[in-house]
Amino acid sequence: MKLNVIKVGGAVVEDKEALSGLLSSLAALQEPFVLVHGGGRAATAMSERLGIETKMVGGRRITDADMLEVVTMVYGGLVNKRIVASLQALGVNAIGICGADLDCIRSVRRPVKDVDYGFVGDVKKVNGKALSDLVLSGAVPVVAPLTHDGCGQILNTNADTIASSVARGLAEYFDVTLTFCFEKEGVLDADGAVIPLIDRQSYKGLVADGTVSGGMLPKLDNAFAALECGVREVVITKADALGRNAGTRITD
Amino acid sequence: MKLNVIKVGGAVVEDKEALSGLLSSLAALQEPFVLVHGGGRAATAMSERLGIETKMVGGRRITDADMLEVVTMVYGGLVNKRIVASLQALGVNAIGICGADLDCIRSVRRPVKDVDYGFVGDVKKVNGKALSDLVLSGAVPVVAPLTHDGCGQILNTNADTIASSVARGLAEYFDVTLTFCFEKEGVLDADGAVIPLIDRQSYKGLVADGTVSGGMLPKLDNAFAALECGVREVVITKADALGRNAGTRITD
Repeated sequence: MKLNVIKVGGAVVEDKEALSGLLSSLAALQEPFVLVHGGGRAATAMSERLGIETKMVGGRRITDADMLEVVTMVYGGLVNKRIVASLQALGVNAIGICGADLDCIRSVRRPVKDVDYGFVGDVKKVNGKALSDLVLSGAVPVVAPLTHDGCGQILNTNADTIASSVARGLAEYFDVTLTFCFEKEGVLDADGAVIPLIDRQSYKGLVADGTVSGGMLPKLDNAFAALECGVREVVITKADALGRNAGTRITD
Repeated sequence: MKLNVIKVGGAVVEDKEALSGLLSSLAALQEPFVLVHGGGRAATAMSERLGIETKMVGGRRITDADMLEVVTMVYGGLVNKRIVASLQALGVNAIGICGADLDCIRSVRRPVKDVDYGFVGDVKKVNGKALSDLVLSGAVPVVAPLTHDGCGQILNTNADTIASSVARGLAEYFDVTLTFCFEKEGVLDADGAVIPLIDRQSYKGLVADGTVSGGMLPKLDNAFAALECGVREVVITKADALGRNAGTRITD
């Protein structure tokens, strides 16, 4: 059975109009799907309101105890439950979860090397069976980017990593497409045109000549890692193009 | 099959030591259970930090748009996911949900009469089938006191009401005991001793002579309403006495 694991970024989730468009696109999908969402901007905004300083290193959030509280409530509560209620209103049988629920995604706290990221978890194990059972029961899991260590500690985990981990965990049970939705139409070349297809060979060239850089690098690294672990296809596309076969396809 | 629907109040949930004791008692239960939690004190504390005024009328929280944001993130995220992670650490296969997830609990915004409670929902319909399927799959639902109206709006709903509604919705599928855990050993008489059994007849006397008053009144009204709708037994007890057959039993 085909299954789409779809990651939507913060910018889409936190713009009311963009989110509404995305959710309508999702509700129109014929195949079952799992939605993974971010929420970094909402977390930053909430921590500002609480007088908690946001510290980033290399685009990654340093998660001290105060920030963990913020992301737990913003990702797991505010953003997640709003998406769930909106999807339910569109007739999609959404269920909001994080990695702790049903022991779906277990992680280990990132070891301190050059940087202490705090309560950040690197994914160790995805419970593909539990997620698969939810999907087969007709539910649409909506996954917040939080994991747990199995000893009661919630950990903050990058949403792209969650999406590719979930896709890999489900690849044993479904024919999985992993889709990253973001602001642009796909991976763009130097002229701003969408690159329709990237394979491992062409990727090397795109990195070497600087076409792909910055935040796109971990996204594509995640994509290839997912392909290596049984995911059939990775797509990078604009949120409102979902289901239109647009964007950049990544294959091995 | 027997099933225990257990409500734990804010004071227990928000005291680290009390919560840890409660969760250990829960993990030791032989029968399947559903946990419903509050979180009012945490919501009040968070709203204070955000400079949002907490307004109460007759012990009920007025939920304006700002307060709805707070309870959505505190109940649905912070409190719920912490309990889930702690239960998972004890080997309990918890899944945190609110009324919007799987369309479990649908409500209607409370009509404005003397008081405008804001975004407060009165329960209209419980999806007993969805909750029953979760329980039968081996999961332990941990329910945050939030509902939805089916049109995308999350609503704040009293946790006692959630517990009795869930118990009633599950009574079609299980032999349900509804347990309210709180700070005291049970319903106390004038001398501070636990009243072991209350039925409808004795309840009238306890209300008339003032033994039962204040916050205990809606709890007991909820209890009798649940019994009328097929719940086998209601128990009011101290959190750390769970599974010890202590407290006050309420029967028709």
